[in-house]
Amino acid sequence: MRPARRIGVIGGLGPMAGVDLVRKVFEQTAAITDQEHLNVALLSCSENVRDRSEFLFGRTSRNPAIEIAASLVQLDAMGCDVAAIACLTSHSPRIYDEITAQLSRSGTRLRLLHAVEEVAAFCRQYLSDVDAVGVLATSGSVNSDLFGPVFGRCGLTAIYPDPDVQGGLVHDAIYNAKHGIKAAVCPTMTQARNQLMEAAQHLIDKGAEAIVLGCTEIPLVISESTIAGRTLIDPAVVVARSLIRHVAPEKLRPLAFSAFANAVQGDLARAGSFRE
Amino acid sequence: MRPARRIGVIGGLGPMAGVDLVRKVFEQTAAITDQEHLNVALLSCSENVRDRSEFLFGRTSRNPAIEIAASLVQLDAMGCDVAAIACLTSHSPRIYDEITAQLSRSGTRLRLLHAVEEVAAFCRQYLSDVDAVGVLATSGSVNSDLFGPVFGRCGLTAIYPDPDVQGGLVHDAIYNAKHGIKAAVCPTMTQARNQLMEAAQHLIDKGAEAIVLGCTEIPLVISESTIAGRTLIDPAVVVARSLIRHVAPEKLRPLAFSAFANAVQGDLARAGSFRE
Repeated sequence: MRPARRIGVIGGLGPMAGVDLVRKVFEQTAAITDQEHLNVALLSCSENVRDRSEFLFGRTSRNPAIEIAASLVQLDAMGCDVAAIACLTSHSPRIYDEITAQLSRSGTRLRLLHAVEEVAAFCRQYLSDVDAVGVLATSGSVNSDLFGPVFGRCGLTAIYPDPDVQGGLVHDAIYNAKHGIKAAVCPTMTQARNQLMEAAQHLIDKGAEAIVLGCTEIPLVISESTIAGRTLIDPAVVVARSLIRHVAPEKLRPLAFSAFANAVQGDLARAGSFRE
Repeated sequence: MRPARRIGVIGGLGPMAGVDLVRKVFEQTAAITDQEHLNVALLSCSENVRDRSEFLFGRTSRNPAIEIAASLVQLDAMGCDVAAIACLTSHSPRIYDEITAQLSRSGTRLRLLHAVEEVAAFCRQYLSDVDAVGVLATSGSVNSDLFGPVFGRCGLTAIYPDPDVQGGLVHDAIYNAKHGIKAAVCPTMTQARNQLMEAAQHLIDKGAEAIVLGCTEIPLVISESTIAGRTLIDPAVVVARSLIRHVAPEKLRPLAFSAFANAVQGDLARAGSFRE
């Protein structure tokens, strides 16, 4: 029997974001039997990985890259061909560069996708009219300008919220110990959602033509594909599709199946054709 | 740093059922930060594991136990302390006994939970008034009487649907290539759900005092905790709680958080107290 291809996912950062990315891999796979689905390994490693924003703020000295890289090496040992980290903040250079350095030293052949680069490439391919992309993300990501340079290399401009909105609405919606997304995995998270929607409108007022839900917790409470006519980009869908494309491009569902249906169908109507 | 405890889950049988079990582990864990959550490894192995019902029907000769056991050994190698298989049909003796035999030969120390035994123990603990439990499951599980002997050892009687309901409504709702749960991971699955609800009413007409959603695909389309006053038992919630109890009982949320809230609160009201 041919060794099966296997997709790897680092989860636990937070846990529901990892589950969400794996779910989207299956949703984006064209399959009607179990056997047609792709093999996936999820390592949800919460207990030993320090908070990424806390590290970027300088409040903890141990780089979470160390445990993330160790888990990626485990995914490689389990036969994964390609992997992604279901946490945008960990793509900030001070963390991500250390992850790739450790992977390089380990000699792993695992292909690791960079979620923000995937989002930028997605914007360029499917949202050709968009130049200014609003960013909803942790303060760790925003303060380290994770999105600006990556978007800039694709000719996109990253628009961040003003500091009071960033701290008081966005970061708080993710981290608040009572009403934050990380604290409440199951109940309705109305307050967190309302804060993020208010921050999204603020980004539109600042000129955002599309908005990236740039922390993997945010799509857990915002499932719409647009707000006020602007496309909301879910990096989990983008990364899920890239993971599938790496191991089995023939199994990728048409994009119309995804949350980007409206935006992309509009784009297609303008372009007149669609090939990925 | 203390080696973190780790829960293992075999998924892919089908894929969304594995994701569902991991999600329920996190939902049932008392945690307000990522770091308070438990480490979980999910091996979603779809491509190489034959269909369990097809094997029990004699339509394929390779026992899916072989690949399931190999994946459990991988979970052990990754440091998992306890594991569960997110597929009830694979607990049928012709499959499960081979899994445990292979694990025994491998020398693994992994503790494997038996989902049907967990469900039976749950019924005895929390549904003390119930004797006859209806079963919605695959025809592989029903034809091999997976539930009868296990329930019988706990003083429970398993009630299966009549053959025409079993094949025409229940198994079809899971496996139909067009409207079955395995075929359609994302769209609304109204027809599958309606068939299962009709079969549940049929079980109540046959005397079921509670109903176990005895295939891990079924809770994907039925999230209610009762039907016509009878408790619907979700084995994924039961197993998720057992997994947590094995590695970190202090982190188990009160059962009222779960889908069994109504039933158990009724039970508690009668019993006057609640200790797990």
